[in-house]
Amino acid sequence: RINSDRLWDSIMEMAKIGPGVAGGNNRQTLTDADGEGRQLFKRWCEAAGLEMGLDEMGTMFARREGTEPDLPPVYVGSHLDTQPTGGKYDGVLGVLGGLEIVRSLNELGIKTKHPIVVTNWTNEEGARFAPAMMASGVFAGVLDQADVYEHVDKDGKKFGEELERIGWKGSEKVGERKIHAFFELHIEQGPILEDEGIDIGVVTHGQGLKWLQVTLTGKEAHTGSTPMPKRRNAGLGMARVIELVHEIAMDYQPDAVGAVGHMEVYPNSRNIIAGRTMFTIDIRSPEKEVLDAMDGRIREGIDTICEALDIQYQIDQVGHFDPVTFDPGCVKAVRDAAERLGYTHRNIVSGAGHDACWINRVAPTAMVMCPCVDGLSHNEAEEITKEWAAAGADVLFHAVVETAVI
Amino acid sequence: RINSDRLWDSIMEMAKIGPGVAGGNNRQTLTDADGEGRQLFKRWCEAAGLEMGLDEMGTMFARREGTEPDLPPVYVGSHLDTQPTGGKYDGVLGVLGGLEIVRSLNELGIKTKHPIVVTNWTNEEGARFAPAMMASGVFAGVLDQADVYEHVDKDGKKFGEELERIGWKGSEKVGERKIHAFFELHIEQGPILEDEGIDIGVVTHGQGLKWLQVTLTGKEAHTGSTPMPKRRNAGLGMARVIELVHEIAMDYQPDAVGAVGHMEVYPNSRNIIAGRTMFTIDIRSPEKEVLDAMDGRIREGIDTICEALDIQYQIDQVGHFDPVTFDPGCVKAVRDAAERLGYTHRNIVSGAGHDACWINRVAPTAMVMCPCVDGLSHNEAEEITKEWAAAGADVLFHAVVETAVI
Ligand SMILES: NC(=O)NCCC(=O)O
Ligand SMILES: NC(=O)NCCC(=O)O
Repeated sequence: RINSDRLWDSIMEMAKIGPGVAGGNNRQTLTDADGEGRQLFKRWCEAAGLEMGLDEMGTMFARREGTEPDLPPVYVGSHLDTQPTGGKYDGVLGVLGGLEIVRSLNELGIKTKHPIVVTNWTNEEGARFAPAMMASGVFAGVLDQADVYEHVDKDGKKFGEELERIGWKGSEKVGERKIHAFFELHIEQGPILEDEGIDIGVVTHGQGLKWLQVTLTGKEAHTGSTPMPKRRNAGLGMARVIELVHEIAMDYQPDAVGAVGHMEVYPNSRNIIAGRTMFTIDIRSPEKEVLDAMDGRIREGIDTICEALDIQYQIDQVGHFDPVTFDPGCVKAVRDAAERLGYTHRNIVSGAGHDACWINRVAPTAMVMCPCVDGLSHNEAEEITKEWAAAGADVLFHAVVETAVI
Repeated sequence: RINSDRLWDSIMEMAKIGPGVAGGNNRQTLTDADGEGRQLFKRWCEAAGLEMGLDEMGTMFARREGTEPDLPPVYVGSHLDTQPTGGKYDGVLGVLGGLEIVRSLNELGIKTKHPIVVTNWTNEEGARFAPAMMASGVFAGVLDQADVYEHVDKDGKKFGEELERIGWKGSEKVGERKIHAFFELHIEQGPILEDEGIDIGVVTHGQGLKWLQVTLTGKEAHTGSTPMPKRRNAGLGMARVIELVHEIAMDYQPDAVGAVGHMEVYPNSRNIIAGRTMFTIDIRSPEKEVLDAMDGRIREGIDTICEALDIQYQIDQVGHFDPVTFDPGCVKAVRDAAERLGYTHRNIVSGAGHDACWINRVAPTAMVMCPCVDGLSHNEAEEITKEWAAAGADVLFHAVVETAVI
């Protein structure tokens, strides 16, 4: 078993970097705080005798040599970046859980045949720069590196420039590593495990996602003196699309979810009818057909809404992944580990996207989940217990070591 | 008749200060650009021999002495501040139309018994700091000066501090001036005059307004892994309230309008369900009963919406004025002037709020309106013709001089 105190202390230490305003974290990708978090992780890795690698997307790879160094490594990790109002565990548990495995192996003097590499994937959250899981997406060959370098945040800053600015752009080509298997530990971010009192989620599938960025163009006009029939209200259009997305998601739930969390209004003045709005629709489903059907209905609905309001629209898909089926062998390794350790477990579908979803396309991959309080995540109040974290890390430990072979 | 070229040139000169991004202006109140605009106006006033006054709200008063200096002055003016995406004429025409009257009187060597005072009221737009017509509201004793000094803009900057910062906080107590009559020339900001091909709107009434700032509090949560029934989505709540406001306004139109132009979303991340939204409802009607009925229905509707979504709400009234009936004597002076000058005219109700609406409570007041292209205002593309401006200023000239008595 891993050392649960050491794991917990490390999580709490990391949480001091980029504190939020309500007990959580704001350590968004490629900010100075992200740089600080990376430094701390690097120091810990070096202290554990790991060899650091850094690729052109800023993803960190900390390698523990195997007894057969030419075998492809087993990878384990997640991400250290957070939402603007993020929790202390989302991503961090998976990275520091990986580190804890290595620390435990060192302590126990255990050598594995395959090397083990602990990873911190850059920009998993997609909060500052869309899409989410950006570096793992480039690694898996799904996203184009030159293209994502040009993606901008709300202040117009480019991903590529910010990566250089914080000093974490490596020289290693992205995606050339051979991966024997990849394991990611993550908090569930949903309520199922806690509600059912189960220790471990054996993640068999991941939901698919689409992010549709919608721009509506109406006409700025005076809220007081413009007759109702003359208005071309892009704010009203946005409101109707938000309701549309909700209704469609309700039609398909529990096999789908949908919401709009990001909205911009222009010029955003109390007495000006919005001339332009921009917002991102987030729809998800474990069924590709459902996701596609939702996408189709949303596009049709937007067309109808805009026609009625005499406004123009543009829809850009700024994020997308199909539903994922994780590798049966890796999933079995996770289930067996939970079983062997005596933890209650159940199969689960990941509601969120994870780096594991992309890496699954290029290497056998699986995920371990632990409960989180009230299923709450992407909220500074995100919480887990030390025991939940320890159970997850124990299962991760056994699955990784089993796969890396003693 | 006034000198229409000089008036037009002055308007174009003023438009160079605080240019917008699309041919209009962004000269929001208490910005550096506002300060520059004030300086230019002051230079012009001094060149015209006027004596400058400045009160504690930053309102500028430029006085042309009367032959009977103890008589209360006739006031004429409007505002030089603009929306973030404002036009070149909204407010400016009224201030520089007042200046043009004085310049014409000087040129013609005409003396009036009553002094004439040209005014630039601070923060008419209410875009940066709510409410609109702030300085005239304090002047009329409806708003509290100490209170509005504390009002903050989106960056948390206080009105009182910004007024000092730009150097335009005067020492004159607000509201102590005796006003014989007040006249304000303004573009219509609506389509009626242009549609009917009429030169002059004789403003008999003004619509009433309410600004309701609504804060909805739900719960930040993950857009992917939070089941639909568990969501407490403040963004969806905002969307429903926007639709509600629209439907209620449609029920009462053409006797009412309603919209939401200002919205804030927190934390505004693509994959976080909004935990908090804040937005301002703008409803108006020329009938007090209609305004009150809309207000009641909106509050009821918000309660129902929030109950269904399990979110909390708070409603703060951040702006309010009752419908206005302008002074029959001043209105007649405007109508007679239009008639005498041979301009086509009609009675009109102002759709927008104006400083004249507040001053009407403490002194006999009326307004002159001229058409604007497509009825468009609060848009950088706001446009009028030199002829329309001249007709409006001519009528203003005659109404003011008639009232100030030669
Ligand atoms: N795990 C997680 O929150 N990832 C962010 C990407 C997503 O929105 O699913
Ligand atoms: N005239 C004008 O646009 N005033 C601003 C206040 C309002 O919204 O009516």
